[in-house]
This record gives sequence, structure tokens and C-alpha cells, in this order.
Amino acid sequence: MGLIVQKFGGTSVRDRDRIFNVARIVADTHRAGNDVVVVVSAQGDTTDDLIAKAAEITHDPSAREMDMLLATGEQISISLLAMALNAIGCNAVSLTGWQAGFHTDRAYTKARISRMDTERISSELERNRVVVVAGFQGIDKLDDITTLGRGGSDTSAVAIAASLHADRCQIYTDVEGVYTADPRKVPRAKKLEEITFDEMLELASLGAQVLNNRSVELAKKFNVPLEVLSSLNPIPGTIVKEATNVEGMLIKGVAKDADISVISIMNVPDVPGMSFKVFGLMAQKSINVDVILQSTGRDGNKDLSFTVATGDAEMAVKVLEENKSRFGGTEITRDDSCAKVSIVGAGMQSHSGVASSMFEALANNDINIKMISTSEIKVSVILAKKDADRAVSAIHDMLIH
Amino acid sequence: MGLIVQKFGGTSVRDRDRIFNVARIVADTHRAGNDVVVVVSAQGDTTDDLIAKAAEITHDPSAREMDMLLATGEQISISLLAMALNAIGCNAVSLTGWQAGFHTDRAYTKARISRMDTERISSELERNRVVVVAGFQGIDKLDDITTLGRGGSDTSAVAIAASLHADRCQIYTDVEGVYTADPRKVPRAKKLEEITFDEMLELASLGAQVLNNRSVELAKKFNVPLEVLSSLNPIPGTIVKEATNVEGMLIKGVAKDADISVISIMNVPDVPGMSFKVFGLMAQKSINVDVILQSTGRDGNKDLSFTVATGDAEMAVKVLEENKSRFGGTEITRDDSCAKVSIVGAGMQSHSGVASSMFEALANNDINIKMISTSEIKVSVILAKKDADRAVSAIHDMLIH
Repeated sequence: MGLIVQKFGGTSVRDRDRIFNVARIVADTHRAGNDVVVVVSAQGDTTDDLIAKAAEITHDPSAREMDMLLATGEQISISLLAMALNAIGCNAVSLTGWQAGFHTDRAYTKARISRMDTERISSELERNRVVVVAGFQGIDKLDDITTLGRGGSDTSAVAIAASLHADRCQIYTDVEGVYTADPRKVPRAKKLEEITFDEMLELASLGAQVLNNRSVELAKKFNVPLEVLSSLNPIPGTIVKEATNVEGMLIKGVAKDADISVISIMNVPDVPGMSFKVFGLMAQKSINVDVILQSTGRDGNKDLSFTVATGDAEMAVKVLEENKSRFGGTEITRDDSCAKVSIVGAGMQSHSGVASSMFEALANNDINIKMISTSEIKVSVILAKKDADRAVSAIHDMLIH
Repeated sequence: MGLIVQKFGGTSVRDRDRIFNVARIVADTHRAGNDVVVVVSAQGDTTDDLIAKAAEITHDPSAREMDMLLATGEQISISLLAMALNAIGCNAVSLTGWQAGFHTDRAYTKARISRMDTERISSELERNRVVVVAGFQGIDKLDDITTLGRGGSDTSAVAIAASLHADRCQIYTDVEGVYTADPRKVPRAKKLEEITFDEMLELASLGAQVLNNRSVELAKKFNVPLEVLSSLNPIPGTIVKEATNVEGMLIKGVAKDADISVISIMNVPDVPGMSFKVFGLMAQKSINVDVILQSTGRDGNKDLSFTVATGDAEMAVKVLEENKSRFGGTEITRDDSCAKVSIVGAGMQSHSGVASSMFEALANNDINIKMISTSEIKVSVILAKKDADRAVSAIHDMLIH
């Protein structure tokens, strides 16, 4: 008896049968006495098909026209889902991003929501209709269509839930919740009942890819309780919320991110301000730097290594080469053969033994650690990509029982 | 050196090559110093594919959701065409129906334009951009997406041309203009240089199907000069305008409409008001009645026959059967074996010999006439469907040299 926002990804609406499966979940929630807003992504491969159409025309389409093109994907999904809901006797109406009141900045293909105008959604809910909203899209102040970028539909769902003070925002996926490790790789991985926003943020950024990071940040900011659950198996999923059970597990998950590159600069003069110059260049190009290792060098020099997403590596090397004179350094190298393996858990703050258990598990399996990074709720190690899956299993077996 | 509106149908933008062909036509027009607004339909089979998607979900989709679904077709076309124009160095921006300012009534799937707000189009033209507009679509006063129905993109183009006082509205098709008869059936058919709005209206309603009737009505109302021409063969097409060359041909065309049904009511009492009752019923159901034949009956009765579009015939018979008691009549029949063949030309008003020449051509070919209807610029005959193509050829040979 409340307001529930439900989000379904592209796989969940990929064909007729899956659309009716979603319609039944939504209709059941509505019949149980809840107001329901549904956010859907584009069907299955629709977005890829549209990108292929654009690629046939030009390899350098304007971002504005790409957004115009891609926004059709969700518009197709919402109309089909509304038809399916109506067909099973559940009164529904579909709304595009702009109709639903998503106002964004003008950063086409990766826009950020600047304002939600929920008047239309509210008036449809008052008429006891299920409101089916196109995720991933909005309009800027000139009324041009924008898209929110990868995983944007999660963000759309959380933004609606936050604006309408929804009782819960359910993110339906093809997994049954958040696991302590990738269940396809680690058979002993367990589904978590609960996890905190911060833990989820660390897991998402570490490559667990269950939830889009921006959506979790937004949920944390407005304290919107999230639930990650399966659209195919109707059992409780994982709740993501502010405070979690203190009696719960110390470690919430072990995650692998193989999409990293290690950039190294050799023989940087060891004088103040050099790191700032290097990382300032990265920031200017919007390149996120993750783990940083600074070696004590010889002869007044040091070596500087850091990781970036592999997609940013080429740009990072290019910018560094162009500006080498500003920070010195004799050589810039790039290494794509590494992966990052991390453990996440709010409980580890007060348990110093956790990190050493992790290192023990790796040592027992003859896995070499190249770099280490720690935060209050996370320990990450950089190691050879070929060892990563073995490392995840070994750490999981050691730390999660 | 003016403002030109160019409309391209779905065949003209069906794939990459055809999109670039259209882009070149548009860019050439723009480079010649003209402001250009381009209206496009959905690509090739897109609309049919979308209709098939809806049919998988339900056989009775709400009209509102169908419009939401179908409007994506043109949105895909406009973004791809804008990308193609940009790719060949012609600065272009795409606008959906609502962005372009098409305000309509709420008659989903067959909406009528109530108002054009051309502010956005004008401001883009001032920036020297080609404006690529989605045809066929608009929004109603609640900001819901509507579509204009069959041939709606022609209407969109004419509405823009009328609102912006364009110098010409060019309708690009897969034929080179308006012909005196269907050139696939009548090898001697000639392309017309000019035709009046009224003649074009008669030809369109007679099944020539080059231009949508509503678009011609709108062009006539606001005196927008139309040109029908080919997107594949860059030669002058046919100009549709108010006054035409008085020295021109008497007869502008011979057209066939095979999509008709003859409804007959036998033995209607021959008292005043009976026709009104019958045709009032048809009007209530929005069924257009075309040729009407009333026979002098016996015993104070008469037989009433009229033609309707075959798609309306079932409804017409049903309504008449249900209300038979109101107008009498012993029997209601439906005959789908007929076709209508017509000659059109403003010049025939003052030439009484035209109709008799038409009848002579039919008599010479042993083709029987079942019903006759005349207007100031048209003579139509109803005859057996199997004779229709032969009739068109015979009349064309007799009247158009």
C-alpha cells in the first residue's frame, strides 16, 4: 500500500513473452494496492541496431542526433508494455522522458538530470493508472532530446522514486540480487539480503555491474531504498539501503575488474607538485584515475604508476606524451595485462585482519600482487589478468563462509 | 533564393544509399541559396514492422499507444538524414513533430493539425541550418503524441509551407509527376506540367494516390504551390497550383478506383425524407458515400444504390440492416465486383462533348456502364472491375492525344 517504482532492463522486455512477464509483475504489484511507476529500457538489441544504423551513415555522428535516434528505443518499449498491461486489464499509460518531466543538462549522450517535473506522472497516478516511463532519456532547456548514458535507466528510476518519495525502487535484472562474487565464476557465491549504499557503490565501481553507479549515488543522496531482484524468479532480492544489519557479514563481496590499464611514468623528478601536474592533466580530460602507486626512486627521481579504464588509456598516454616536458619523466608505458580484485564491506573498518587474510589467500595460491589500494570499506589489489578469476575464488573461500 | 519545403516518403529514405541521395538533393537546394525545411516519413517498412510488433501484443491496441509507437519511425529517419547532411558538410538539425510545433486535436491515429508554432523552425533557419522535420506526427493539448494518419507527411509538409509562406512545397515520390493515367497500365500516359488544386483533388480521391487529399486541400486553402517530382530522376515534375494554363489540355487525367463497393437498397418507399434517413446513417458512422443512383421504381417504391470504399462496406450494410425499419426497403445488397473510372479536367466545364466522347470510347469497346456521376470538373462511371483497365486505356486514347 504505497508507491513503488519498478525498473526493467532491455533483456526483461526483449520479446513478446518477456513483455507479458513484466506486465504480470507490474499488474500484480498494482492489484496489491500500490501506485506503480514502471521504467523500461530499450528492447534487447534495439540500441545496438540503432547504433549500427548511424554507423552506416557516418563514423562521427553528432551527439545530439545520436540522442534523437537512440531515444526511439525506449519509446518503442513503453508503448508495447502499456499495450500489454492494458491487454491484461491493467490501466496503463506510457510517457516518454520529456513527457515524464526529466529535465537534463545539454551533455548529449551522457546528460545529467537537472530537475524532475512530476506533475504529469502524479496526475496519471491519481487516475489510478500504471505509468510506464521511458528510461535513459530527457530534454534539455532548449527542448532537445538527451540521453543519460550507460545504465541511465537505473538513474531514471531512482530519480522518479526520489522525487515522488517512493516507498521502494525495485531494479529488476536477470540475476536474483547482489552476490558476494560473480556466481558464474564462483559457485560458492552467496546472495546478500542487504547491503549499504557505500558498499554497493564500491562493488559497482569495481566491475560487479549489477547497478549503475550514478543511480546508487542518487539513491544514497535521497535515501531511496533500492531492491535488486530477478524478473524471472519471483523471490526477494537484495535490499540496498543506508543502515544495514550490524550482525551481518564482514565482507559483502569480492569483485573483479578486468577493464583496466596500468600507466607508468619512469623517473619523474621527486619535487613537490609533480603528481598534481600529472593528475591535473587526467582530470582535464575527464579521465578517472583509480589505484595510484608511487615508488621511491633513486637519484632524486621516482616512478609513478596508476590505473585507468582501458577505454581511457590511449587518451591518457597521448596527453602525457604531449606534456612530458611539464613534469619530466623519461618514459611512459601502458600495460593492459592487469586486473583489479577487491573486497568490499563496511565491517572491515574495525577488523584489521581482513586485508592480511586477503593477502594470505593470494600467497597460498602463488598469485603475485603488483599494487595495493585501500579505503575504509575496500581493499583492492592489482594483479595479472590471467590470475584474476583464481584470485577471486581464493579470496572468497578464505573470507566468506 | 527563397524558402523551400521538401518532403520525402519512406521509399526515398529506405536505406543508406537512398538517404544520401536525399541528402544531396537537399544540400544542393540549400547551396543554391535557399532556406530548406525537409519533411520525412518513416523508412521503408518501418511502420509495418512497428504495427507487427503491436499486433504481437494485442489485436486491439489503444490508439494513443499506437501513436506513441509509430512516431518512433519518423524520429529514426530524421536523425539519420540530419547525420547524412552533416556528413556531406550541410549543417542540419532534426526536429520531432512536437519540437517542430505541430499541435493537433486528440483524434489519435488520424489527428488534424490545429495550430503550427514555427518559432523553433524559424530560429534554426536563421542559424542557416537545414531543418529536418518528422512528418506524420504532432502533439495534442495534453502533450500526448498524435499521428496524422495515412499520407500525413504530405500534410505536415504543406502545413509548414503554409505557416512559413514558403515559395514552394516539393513532394518527392517514386514517380516523376502527375500523369494523365497510371503509366504502368497505360503506356501512352503523359506527365502533366501543371494541374489545378481542384483537378488534383478529384484525381487523388479517384485513386490516383500521388498526393494525399488533405494535403492538397490545405495547399489550396493557403495557396501553397506544390510540385510533385521524383527523388531519383532530377527533372521538373508537375506543378499543382490555383490557376493553370488555359491553353492546356482539356482533360488532365483518367483514373481508376477499384476499391469500391456498391450498396443497394431495394423497394424503398418513394416518399420525401427517405434518402436523408439512409445517408444520415452513413454520415453518423463517418462513411463517405460517393456515386448515388436512384432508380424510378414501381408501385410507389424506388431502388437506391450508392458506392462506398470497400473498407466501409461491412459497416454500411450492418447499420442499414439494423435500421431497415426506419426507411423501409425489402433487401440490402452489396456488390464488390465494380470499379470507378473517371476523367478529370477543369476545361470540361465548357465542353459538353467530353462526357459523350467518354461514353463513346466505352461503347466502342463493349464496356457496360452501371452508374454515372458528374461534377463540374469530373465525369465518373461505375463499371465491372474486370473491364476497368481496358476502360482507362480506351478513354485515354480517345480523349488525351
